[in-house]
Amino acid sequence: MFRDPVQSPEAPPLHPATVAMRPLRVGMIGIGTVGAGTFRVLARNQALIAGRAGRGIEMVVVAARNLARAASVVGTDVALTNDPMLVATHPDVDVVVEVAGGTGPARAWVLAAIAAGKHVVTANKALLATHGNEIFAAARQHGVAVAYEGAVAVSIPIVKALREGLTANRIEWVAGIINGTTNFILSKMRDEGLGFAQALEQAQALGYAEADPTFDIEGVDAAHKISLLAANAFGMPVRFADAQVEGITRLQGLDVACAEQLGYRIKLLGVAKRRVDDGVQGVELRVQPALVPATHLLAHVNGSMNAVMVKGDAAGVTMFYGAGAGSEQTASAVIADLVDVARLDGTHAGQRVPHLGCHAHALDEQLAVLPRAAVFTHHYLRVPVHSAQQIEVVVAWLAAQQVPVLQIQRAHDKNLPSGSGPQVLVLTDRVAQATVDLAVNALAAHPAVAGPVVTLRVEMLEG
Amino acid sequence: MFRDPVQSPEAPPLHPATVAMRPLRVGMIGIGTVGAGTFRVLARNQALIAGRAGRGIEMVVVAARNLARAASVVGTDVALTNDPMLVATHPDVDVVVEVAGGTGPARAWVLAAIAAGKHVVTANKALLATHGNEIFAAARQHGVAVAYEGAVAVSIPIVKALREGLTANRIEWVAGIINGTTNFILSKMRDEGLGFAQALEQAQALGYAEADPTFDIEGVDAAHKISLLAANAFGMPVRFADAQVEGITRLQGLDVACAEQLGYRIKLLGVAKRRVDDGVQGVELRVQPALVPATHLLAHVNGSMNAVMVKGDAAGVTMFYGAGAGSEQTASAVIADLVDVARLDGTHAGQRVPHLGCHAHALDEQLAVLPRAAVFTHHYLRVPVHSAQQIEVVVAWLAAQQVPVLQIQRAHDKNLPSGSGPQVLVLTDRVAQATVDLAVNALAAHPAVAGPVVTLRVEMLEG
Repeated sequence: MFRDPVQSPEAPPLHPATVAMRPLRVGMIGIGTVGAGTFRVLARNQALIAGRAGRGIEMVVVAARNLARAASVVGTDVALTNDPMLVATHPDVDVVVEVAGGTGPARAWVLAAIAAGKHVVTANKALLATHGNEIFAAARQHGVAVAYEGAVAVSIPIVKALREGLTANRIEWVAGIINGTTNFILSKMRDEGLGFAQALEQAQALGYAEADPTFDIEGVDAAHKISLLAANAFGMPVRFADAQVEGITRLQGLDVACAEQLGYRIKLLGVAKRRVDDGVQGVELRVQPALVPATHLLAHVNGSMNAVMVKGDAAGVTMFYGAGAGSEQTASAVIADLVDVARLDGTHAGQRVPHLGCHAHALDEQLAVLPRAAVFTHHYLRVPVHSAQQIEVVVAWLAAQQVPVLQIQRAHDKNLPSGSGPQVLVLTDRVAQATVDLAVNALAAHPAVAGPVVTLRVEMLEG
Repeated sequence: MFRDPVQSPEAPPLHPATVAMRPLRVGMIGIGTVGAGTFRVLARNQALIAGRAGRGIEMVVVAARNLARAASVVGTDVALTNDPMLVATHPDVDVVVEVAGGTGPARAWVLAAIAAGKHVVTANKALLATHGNEIFAAARQHGVAVAYEGAVAVSIPIVKALREGLTANRIEWVAGIINGTTNFILSKMRDEGLGFAQALEQAQALGYAEADPTFDIEGVDAAHKISLLAANAFGMPVRFADAQVEGITRLQGLDVACAEQLGYRIKLLGVAKRRVDDGVQGVELRVQPALVPATHLLAHVNGSMNAVMVKGDAAGVTMFYGAGAGSEQTASAVIADLVDVARLDGTHAGQRVPHLGCHAHALDEQLAVLPRAAVFTHHYLRVPVHSAQQIEVVVAWLAAQQVPVLQIQRAHDKNLPSGSGPQVLVLTDRVAQATVDLAVNALAAHPAVAGPVVTLRVEMLEG
């Protein structure tokens, strides 16, 4: 079943001090884009990485669907198999890298690896968002590490920042641009005045969107990631199933232009916010296109780049920026996790940093995700009206509905597509989603209103 | 000599699981701004931090110059002494936090703590920039951690990012805005058209600059930090003494305005760059005001905020942003270091992450800082001329001097102070500092030139 590894004579020599320590032996499941990148970076920077880790990191076995293609990537030094379970339980393997993706089979492989006492490194956000709580519990029971820096905003060490760099802080909120495909599309819509469909086509042509982009454009990928970030920020279980998720497929170019007029840009944000105000105890956990002030640093994160902003009670606002996808960009995170494992000594047993940042007894099992109606933000409303004079009607109506208005103006003609009627643009103060929903429903029936009212949240992201 | 600690009845209770583990016992030297912040955040977030660390973190003794003032901060639970050496060698202390500042005495305290087998956490950049190599060698010998996240861009976990998050990468360069005082002054100069002296006055009035701001405005503080970042990025000893350091005291408001005209902003940058081009082997290590493209994310880091950009061969460009100074902001880093130490188990002996990111045998002792003349960047030149027509003369002269010109234009009248003669603005391609120096010296003697030629480096900071 295994192809025997052959010693390659060209491998660059390691320093005697790192050779003296037993290398960390890696089995990898999957050798697609991320797996190949991981193999390539490990090989290219072998001596450098060993110098940092204190010992070599050695790929001993890889599971792949296509063995011939796998062999063309890993050469003759690494055993190959078709069976991921053989890698998960391989007696020569210290740590299993799962970069195959998917949830069902990946769950079985990862749980098998944990049960066999292997540390696990994965870049699989879907797996951890849906089965993370079960996987972390198993890892605690078996005393192994499950590391997943590559699962969130790949090149950016944001899991490490939350679990280690910001441990002094009570985290108030985390907000990020954590999906490169949608940020690329939104940047195109803004810069070139494109509609969503055109911008998506360009993203696909340039390789920034997959043939089936559903998970990205519907916000599911971002929701996987913000669920993991929220768990680490607030010391709560992963609550992906409770997240409110809205993608960018219904976003109109008109609103991108109108946001600009008001001094804002639209970004697909993942937001996790600890709420203790207004008598509410819980967490907002949500993904949606939102207006961000154009002067805000997040508004300048363009193209396929990602950035995560964190507000802590001691550190204040910090931001972490980098590529959110890519072969070697993900490899950077996967290998950092491997070095972390290599730096554990034998007695440490994978418990140095708890999987969700805090120890099991301190995990807040009660901390619930707030329902959509209880979410509090500023809001943007675009109200189509029959005549420009009716701006006064909208003002009066919103006041009657107890929507606190900060700013109201007509959309400039240059922002309107030809044939469009006049539009009233509104920025509200912080207000509950429930209030906005009621007001918008009522407004839709008002005789002055000429079409569907569009609402988007506005995130000020203030320090 | 010690005041006895008294159990405070109001301390919030810790979870039994964390109480069961022996707490990490901390002795702190200095209880000024940073020390008081550390004490305050540790107390406020005590249960939260213990839940993350897996055990309590307990301040047992503090050395202070003014015991009465110290008592007003730490209350009655903590022993106080006037003698830092007693803290450094205290038998009840696991880890010594040095937040007193300075170099001579601090060096002695830290070396004494290390010799006594204590881990050390310090936020003292001057100490590590000047004595780091000696201190790290001593720590290696005694198997203790010396952690210093608070010494660089305090709230931003950038040391952790370099030593742990980006370990897969060959780092190509690190560039950052790593001094809040000067960034505040430069932001004021740009936003309000102030001269350096006025902006400094405002910074002092608002508490962003000290009464004696020399270390900040002359770039020395930034040079301390970039020396530490370079050591971690490139696996080399700390080479502060070799850094080229230039502050912002000679920067003219005129050049801030002219940079703007060209589409750039001026930032005080610390830059560390690994050079392997042009037959050169070595590291550029330098601090100076430099032009950054206005569209670049670093150009949007304003006020007293800091940001560090890192280019790695796998991760690409990442950026880390946050407050660069402040009491609790620094405490955030100091406490994160304490949690890291608390998460070491007893057998781990402080060697989990090597002090400069790579193990001693892998440290490149030969990697030298390149001399100023060998530094290669784009350049900005401002050439005062007697008449606007002489722009042609400057073009011809620079060509003759082999300075590759990318862009040349007259300064707009609105950017010139009243009474100023015409100015020619030049942006060059990448060119050695030596070539620029020769050309500028020659230009100064040219009859068309009406005054001193100003040159500044331009950093494109491209991915």
